[in-house]
Amino acid sequence: MNYLTTQPAHIHTAFLSPQHVAEIVQTRGLPAIFAGLVEAIRADFLRWPEFDKTARVASHSANGVIELMPIADAKTYTFKYVNGHPGNTQRGLSTVMAFGVLADVDTGTPLLVSELTLTTALRTAATSVMAAQALARPDSRVMALIGNGSQSEFQALAFHHVLGIEELRLYDIDEAATAKLMRNLAGTSLRLVKCSSAADAARGADIITTVTADKSQATIITPGMVQPGMHINGVGGDCPSKTELHADVLRAGPVFVEYAPQSRVEGDVQQMAADFPVTELWQVLNGTAMGRSADEQVTVFDSVGFALEDYSALRFMREQALALGIGEPLPLIPALADPKDLFSVLGTAAPVANRQAPVARENHHA
Amino acid sequence: MNYLTTQPAHIHTAFLSPQHVAEIVQTRGLPAIFAGLVEAIRADFLRWPEFDKTARVASHSANGVIELMPIADAKTYTFKYVNGHPGNTQRGLSTVMAFGVLADVDTGTPLLVSELTLTTALRTAATSVMAAQALARPDSRVMALIGNGSQSEFQALAFHHVLGIEELRLYDIDEAATAKLMRNLAGTSLRLVKCSSAADAARGADIITTVTADKSQATIITPGMVQPGMHINGVGGDCPSKTELHADVLRAGPVFVEYAPQSRVEGDVQQMAADFPVTELWQVLNGTAMGRSADEQVTVFDSVGFALEDYSALRFMREQALALGIGEPLPLIPALADPKDLFSVLGTAAPVANRQAPVARENHHA
Repeated sequence: MNYLTTQPAHIHTAFLSPQHVAEIVQTRGLPAIFAGLVEAIRADFLRWPEFDKTARVASHSANGVIELMPIADAKTYTFKYVNGHPGNTQRGLSTVMAFGVLADVDTGTPLLVSELTLTTALRTAATSVMAAQALARPDSRVMALIGNGSQSEFQALAFHHVLGIEELRLYDIDEAATAKLMRNLAGTSLRLVKCSSAADAARGADIITTVTADKSQATIITPGMVQPGMHINGVGGDCPSKTELHADVLRAGPVFVEYAPQSRVEGDVQQMAADFPVTELWQVLNGTAMGRSADEQVTVFDSVGFALEDYSALRFMREQALALGIGEPLPLIPALADPKDLFSVLGTAAPVANRQAPVARENHHA
Repeated sequence: MNYLTTQPAHIHTAFLSPQHVAEIVQTRGLPAIFAGLVEAIRADFLRWPEFDKTARVASHSANGVIELMPIADAKTYTFKYVNGHPGNTQRGLSTVMAFGVLADVDTGTPLLVSELTLTTALRTAATSVMAAQALARPDSRVMALIGNGSQSEFQALAFHHVLGIEELRLYDIDEAATAKLMRNLAGTSLRLVKCSSAADAARGADIITTVTADKSQATIITPGMVQPGMHINGVGGDCPSKTELHADVLRAGPVFVEYAPQSRVEGDVQQMAADFPVTELWQVLNGTAMGRSADEQVTVFDSVGFALEDYSALRFMREQALALGIGEPLPLIPALADPKDLFSVLGTAAPVANRQAPVARENHHA
């Protein structure tokens, strides 16, 4: 092998930028993407015990947090990098930025590096819909959407396209956010009702979705807003000291979570005692736990976002990208003609600074 | 803002491929790169208490392991993804593949995605040299290099260029590996002595470096090979059930480690009782612990590789890349004109599948 002149090739790792993911969504259409994500996440939740689950690894700082969320089954490993910096919007940056990697468990090869800022919004909404399919009244048509920031369009359209929500009752403390949401949804058949308060938005809703972002230990939903038969989809209470629901709302009906060990730290149930009863969603999906048991029951999905949802989303987007020929190769890992010759990647130039005639001799002690 | 027609820009994340890193090394020269890395790692070890240190997060499978190694100070966060799959070489893949990310702690923005397969080999050798500067006899000129695989050229050249090693005594159970190493070092002034066994290689050496890879609980170095005054640089014993040094070699002199909680699980000291004395290297560097105390002493550096070394290497390579204008932008994170309008990344096409006349109305309950 002429290692001195061979240019190293690379292991094939695919890359998806936000524009690539947008292209996938534009090509398939949002309804198909949401329906596909709901089914992908459900299929993975149904094989929950097959996954090696870890609580997220968080690095806290004065302004926010940076987290890694790894998960694996016997075949595929994924992780997500995600930050949470509430002050970022004042600098023109997103509160949450994310990317992720999908790798082959057999060899450790990273197969995909993908943006997950956009994809996380898609998978979070798909997870909310999957939960609502199991927990909300089947005839739900009106949803309150409290918090009209960057997640809100995704929640709105996932519930519209997959669950059949026809009317949204909108509220945000920032009127500009609501105006932005209404502009972005103007091209749909959703009826949009701008409301004057969270209580106003909740009035007459079948489902209340909370996706507020920047407030600590807020009480967005109080017991007075909750009517029999409602389903509450609490998405914004998702880290320690960040909650949205009054404790009595959590006591109003059965509470469902993704992964209890994580939700008890990060979710709205962080307010409750360690033995406060919660049901993991996967058990409702596979029929081993009861979901909604009566039309007049109040149900609560205390969503925090779990690594398995990113696993499902990364696999789904990779399949879409491969089928559509979208994405680019990323030269991340060198492919070596001789796996023991990593040095060959440096080519000829590296040792030149000290290049002299070789002085080698053989030595054959016993 | 015309969110319907604006193409989203991206947060500036830089990307370094193995070829980019090779270009940096070729431009600066290996001696300068090793010297720079040794100083960068030393500077960071000297401010050890400033770092938020975590043991690595490992996902084990039948064939190997995938790990995430995060670390942060108040300003910079990094993590490394690295696998270890001993069977990979039989498939033409590297045993170890790695990449990493450097991010801004203040905002969570990922600033650099970089290959770390090549860079890890560079930083591991630089760390070994940094330890040897503190622990080996200053007049060390002859090094045994046992294990002539993908790490060996890097160890050889770092010790040659930075520590002044003039003669290498080489041994590997795979003669082809030794032949490859000798070819790759042919352009240097190092004297290369091919030896017939590990014991033969150790004979007359001032430093013994072990970088064997694929064997579990091997005993590469036995007490009979160790002479007074030697420094042992044990690099290959770096995960649970993977060791290189006989327990009595560890008892032959003081043992130094990077981060004791990790080394007691992964290093050669995993063989020893939990109270077996080890000294963390940073304390030797800052003068609060004793390094070598006499010429005839045997010293052992039980290296496993710590996240801080990757932090230093990522920062160092980023500085080099910025100074030399090497690297490419990676569109990983969308830059939003309105941080609350993530939906704008999808452009106009997404909701089209259900585009109808908007049906919005205002609602002004109190």
